[in-house]
Formats: sequence, structure tokens, C-alpha cells
Amino acid sequence: MQIKPIKLTSKSKKIVDKTNRYVVKGTFTYPLVIKSGKSVFIQDVDNNWYLDFNSNVCSANIGYNHPEIAKVLKEYCSSSAHKIAGQDFYSEEQMKMAEKLIKITPSNLTKVFLSNSGAEAMENSIKFAYRKKGPLSGISCTGAFHGRTLGALTYTFSKPVQKKNYPELPHIRINFCTSDSDPKIDDIKDLLAKRKVAFVMTEIVQGEGGYNIASQKFIRNLRETTREYDVPLIIDEVQSGIGRTGKWWAFENYNIKPDIIGSAKSLQIGATISSKEYDPNEAGAVSSTWGGGDRIDLAVGLKMIEVIEKEKLISKASKTGKYILSRLKELENVYPDKVFNARGLGLMLAIDLQSTEIRDKVEERAFRNGLLLLGCGSKSIRIVPPLIINEEEVDMGIRILESAIKKIN
Amino acid sequence: MQIKPIKLTSKSKKIVDKTNRYVVKGTFTYPLVIKSGKSVFIQDVDNNWYLDFNSNVCSANIGYNHPEIAKVLKEYCSSSAHKIAGQDFYSEEQMKMAEKLIKITPSNLTKVFLSNSGAEAMENSIKFAYRKKGPLSGISCTGAFHGRTLGALTYTFSKPVQKKNYPELPHIRINFCTSDSDPKIDDIKDLLAKRKVAFVMTEIVQGEGGYNIASQKFIRNLRETTREYDVPLIIDEVQSGIGRTGKWWAFENYNIKPDIIGSAKSLQIGATISSKEYDPNEAGAVSSTWGGGDRIDLAVGLKMIEVIEKEKLISKASKTGKYILSRLKELENVYPDKVFNARGLGLMLAIDLQSTEIRDKVEERAFRNGLLLLGCGSKSIRIVPPLIINEEEVDMGIRILESAIKKIN
Repeated sequence: MQIKPIKLTSKSKKIVDKTNRYVVKGTFTYPLVIKSGKSVFIQDVDNNWYLDFNSNVCSANIGYNHPEIAKVLKEYCSSSAHKIAGQDFYSEEQMKMAEKLIKITPSNLTKVFLSNSGAEAMENSIKFAYRKKGPLSGISCTGAFHGRTLGALTYTFSKPVQKKNYPELPHIRINFCTSDSDPKIDDIKDLLAKRKVAFVMTEIVQGEGGYNIASQKFIRNLRETTREYDVPLIIDEVQSGIGRTGKWWAFENYNIKPDIIGSAKSLQIGATISSKEYDPNEAGAVSSTWGGGDRIDLAVGLKMIEVIEKEKLISKASKTGKYILSRLKELENVYPDKVFNARGLGLMLAIDLQSTEIRDKVEERAFRNGLLLLGCGSKSIRIVPPLIINEEEVDMGIRILESAIKKIN
Repeated sequence: MQIKPIKLTSKSKKIVDKTNRYVVKGTFTYPLVIKSGKSVFIQDVDNNWYLDFNSNVCSANIGYNHPEIAKVLKEYCSSSAHKIAGQDFYSEEQMKMAEKLIKITPSNLTKVFLSNSGAEAMENSIKFAYRKKGPLSGISCTGAFHGRTLGALTYTFSKPVQKKNYPELPHIRINFCTSDSDPKIDDIKDLLAKRKVAFVMTEIVQGEGGYNIASQKFIRNLRETTREYDVPLIIDEVQSGIGRTGKWWAFENYNIKPDIIGSAKSLQIGATISSKEYDPNEAGAVSSTWGGGDRIDLAVGLKMIEVIEKEKLISKASKTGKYILSRLKELENVYPDKVFNARGLGLMLAIDLQSTEIRDKVEERAFRNGLLLLGCGSKSIRIVPPLIINEEEVDMGIRILESAIKKIN
């Protein structure tokens, strides 16, 4: 695939304009109107092709138009009643997805609840904890992002615009520590010694908050201390789950076992996975009419997990992640005044630029040249291509990124 | 279609057993493992056929396997990047759905935000109100059901099991009045005279709460009083929207215009529709990676609206609703000690039985004979077939329902 500077026509423009007329301002970044995709590339309605270093916020871990996924879609194109996938009726697709999730998850996690999104996955994670512990405060971290529904949003501290004027549930915030020598790394011990709480919740790699990677000691501390005080540890694997970090789950890089995890994105649906202890185990405690999105999403999500296994994409993610990190560190060396803090866990990588404004400009320039990037934090750029990306394609993207960086004054 | 007593084999049983092993107890009612559907009938994996008086909680308004929907699915079976439908990229499907929603909605409602479920649609409705009014209390009604995420759940007062041990946002509860002569019908006036609140939210026909139909005066009171005190009125149209009550929106039966509505179910996705005044109009205030589920859901949802228009299903819903109501009132007359309170607005109907236990038994018996019913409230049964149902099919269902009622001791 050759990537060239893009040309937008009135075809894109019309759809963008009409969308802006009828749709509330969300987080639309580029005037890209999606048409299709193939492998690590996305095509817009003007037939421009883009190299995707974003994966729809880690939703497209095996890229686009994978032959195995195409087969599933073909099978379901003649299906009827495809939208029934919740907790009123049973379906083979739900059963298979739940069974698979339990198989790829540590043995203490035994029960699955399927929902429609990452926000719902985290809402239900929180609900499982509250159900058992009562309506106490929950603890989450500075820079956290757990979703935009008001429960998950209470425990989110990523950007003020996401929370302005919204009411909150009872909560306590601790420092998210990226270094073992962070002086606040032991705060959790004092806190749990003094107060009863319903849960402690964190990401392993903060997504929206800026691709901050937790320190080993920080996560182990949380696990040991929560265990000591019988408080559930919830890990948010919405972006990081399903192979992205070189393990099925990012927490496996830290050698701990959480009590509850929430995932979504590359699963195509929302999922809360819990230990027996936090399974609410009461009819009607949780439910969702469509839970698991629909049978097509469930079948596609399951096939994605199977493709990741079959094509050994987890070890590939780890290997390619190392390669990309070396390329990002090169950029840091070549442009020491412009590129900072190259970092990554598996294929979940980022760099920082000098400011929000410069970051946004670099992204815009890259977009115009056919590379899709996505910002996070205040001045970071995520580098999260589909796990199937090869080194040649990585180099193609880094070239476009470098050329955008070079132009910074 | 002939409906016969069902026979379940080990094929169903295996999937049900495995699901129960891996999946958290939700609201699974029957051991029905969905396979497909046609018109108003559902087929399970044992090839039993069921007449559907439930429509997957009003999600399947045009039934199953409609040729126009089959065409859409066929078109999308070769699509790639089908899961990208949110607020990061643009898509023609999102634009068309938003445009259509604005066209079928009163002219004061001008902006749409698409999400993944009814819960998310209501969370965003609440967020729109809070954004403008600040983190004050919100007002909702006794018996209300607005969703299971912790924001929407705060304002839900349907069943204690849905809320036990969960924390809540600031809220005030008022009486949901089904009669113009309810002595509490003017409570809202005193309340808003005394307190500043962020919103007043209600269903028109309470769904999960028991298919209670709001009195005309109650809804008009809410509208007039909220307008007087400059408080947004949010109407929850998750179940009742898109033609179910003989109008596009249930509130149109009350000759009012709300400030914000949330819908889902028969839309196949979640949607919040707002007046210009409550549009947050700030980048990043709301967002959703998949918002609008996926491009297939959006395309299917749009086609459903078009089919409802083309086949004049709204007036049909009104007409068939009247016919069903007459049949339910017959049951009330024939079984005055067993059937109570036959009621309905359009094709959103219900009866009450003597107790929860008896209601559950009647449902179970109907299920064994191939009729799908769904309870609500403490002893009600919803009668919500797809809008396309004809009178012969209605009679078939009423026969099975009557035979189940007859057996009550």
C-alpha cells in the first residue's frame, strides 16, 4: 500500500458539514469520513488511504477486513434476530464469548457479564464491588479515565471538560505512580488503614490520561494492600486488554491477579469479569437488554480473539512494540528539543511533544499525509497500530511522523 | 405459522447450562436459545417457534428478517471497518441517522448524540441538563426505570434489587400520576417553587415499572411548571419511541415538547436528542468511541424507521393497539377475579394478574405453549408485539394467554 498526501472533496465535506449540523460536538478530530479498511489501512469516502496508528482507540487489534472476520460477517449477513444478545434470552454467541474470556483470564476470575461499551463494562465492575461492600467511597487515580457515564466518570480525572458541572458519587483520588521511587507510592496503605472503601480501581497503562505506565511497585502495592484490607482491586483493561501489551491482559505484566476487570474496545463489546467473591449472584442485580451488543459483535469479537491466538499476535505485539519503541527513542535522540518521553508497554506506546498546540499541529500534518494518530493527556501522541502491523509499515508511519515533527518551528 | 407446545432438547440445555456456568445471573427468564426469527415469530436452536409478544423489550418493532433489513445486512456483510461509528471519525451512517431523527422529532429538538444503549442515552440526557444547570438534584418518579448505569440508576425506582448497595447522585422523587385526580399531581409546583433542580425526568408509559400510563394533566403540569422555572424536562423514550404508541414519540400523545429526549431499543442504538439550549456545544463534553454502536446498527436502525414510514406502521400500531386492548378487556370481563387493569397506549399494553407468583406461572405456561411474554412491575405482563402484527396473530397469542390464565387455581 502506497500512502500519499490526502485529497478531500465535496463528498467528504458534505457529510462532515451535515454531521456537524445535526450531531452534538463530540471529539471529532479529522474530517475523515470512514468508508472501509484493509489490514492496517483505512479508506475514506474520497478514496484516500490512511495508515492507522490509532486502531479506533485500540478497537481494531487485527486491523480491517481480515479474511476470518469477513467470513463471520458473511455468515451473519443472512442471520435474523441478530440484535438479541442480552440477559433476557440465551444465545450460543454469548455463551462462547463468556467461555473464551474465562479461558484467557487468570483462574480466580470465573464469571462474565457482557454489556455494550467500555463505560458499561466499568459501571458494572463498580457495581459488583458496591454490591458486596456497600455505598462507600471508591478509590481511583489522578489522570484516570474509566468512561463517560456518571458512575465511571466520577472516578475519571483525565480532563476537566469531561466532568464540568456533573455531580459525583463518593470518591477518593490517589496518585498514579509511574516510578517505583514516587514518594506517594505508599499512600494507599495509610488510606486503607484509616478508611473503609468499596474498591480501588486503576488502569495499568492510562489511556486517555496520557499513556502513563504504572510502576511495578505501585501496582503490587495496590494488590497487596487491598488484599490485606479485603477491598476489591478493579483493573480497567478497556484499551489495554486482549493482547495489546504483549499479554492477554496488561496486569499480567505485573504478576498480580485483580478481583474484577472491565474490558471492551478490541472485544467489540463490553465485558466485566469477576472472581466468585464479587459475582453479585442475585437475579436482577445487573442486566442489559442488548448486553454484548448484538450477536454479530459477539461473533466478530470471539473470532478476533481466535485470530490473535492462531496468528500468535500477542508475541508479535511484544516484538513489534520493542521495535517501535526503539524507533521512537531514535526520534527522541534526533529531536531532543521536540520529542520527549518515548514509552510503551507492548504495542501501547506514546511520545510527548512540547505543548498541546504543537502536538495537535503534528497530528494534523500527519493526517494530511495519510497517517492517523490520536492524542492523549495534554501533549502526548498514542502509537497504537493494529497488532498485525509489520516493520515496513511501522517505518512508513514513523517517516510521516518524523516529517511532521521536523516542521515544528 | 403454526405455534405448538415447545420441546427443548439437549441442544438448548447445553448452551443454557454453559451460559449459567460462565455468565453472571442477569434477568434470564426462559431457557430459550435464540436462533433466528421471521415476522412476529422467533425460532430457538431446537427449532421451536414462538409468537413474540415482547419484541425483545420493544427492540424489534418491525419483527424479524424483514426483507428490507435483510438487504441492509447483505450490503454490510462485505463491509469492513464496520465498528467505527463514534465521535472520533465521521460516517455517512451516523449523519443519516442523526438527520432522520431530527426530521421525525418536534422542531425545538435540533441536536443528536448517538451512543450504545438506552442507559447511555439517558446518562447523556442527564449530562446535557447538568452541564447547563450545575450539579443540583434531579427529579424523577416513583416506579421509574431509566437504565442500569449508576447515573441513570440513581433516578430509577422500579425494583429494590436493581439498586441495593449502590451509591446515588443527588435526587428527589415525585409521584408518577396515572390519574388526573391524583392528589399529588401538583407536587411539582411546590417543589420547583422551593428548590433549584437540574432537571425533571420521566417516562410517558413506565416500562420496567409496570406499564403505568401517565395522566394527561400530570405530563402537562410537568411541562408547564418546568418551563416556568426554566428547568429542562427530559422524556425517556427508550421503550416507547419510534412508533410504538401510535406516534413517533409517546409524548406526542400529550401535546407537549420536551427539552431533551433519550431513545434506544427500536433504534438499535442509543440516541439523545436535545434542544439548542441544552446542547453542550463544547468539544469533549460528551463522546463515545463506538457511539451509535456500529455502522451496521446505524444502517439497520435507519432502515427500520424508513420501513415504519413506508408501511404506515404507526397508524397500524394505533389500530392494532385498540384491537388488543379490546381483547384484553374481554379477558378482564371473562376472568374478573384473575385479570385486572387492562391498559395501553398504542401498541404498548399490559394486564395485571393477582400476584407476582401467578404472573410468573402464567408467563411460564404461555412460554411452554410458544408465546413469549415479559413481566413488568410486580404483577403485570407487557403485551408489546412487533408493530407489524396482524389481528389473526393477535388472536393466536390471546388464545395461548387465555389458556394459561384459565389454569390459575
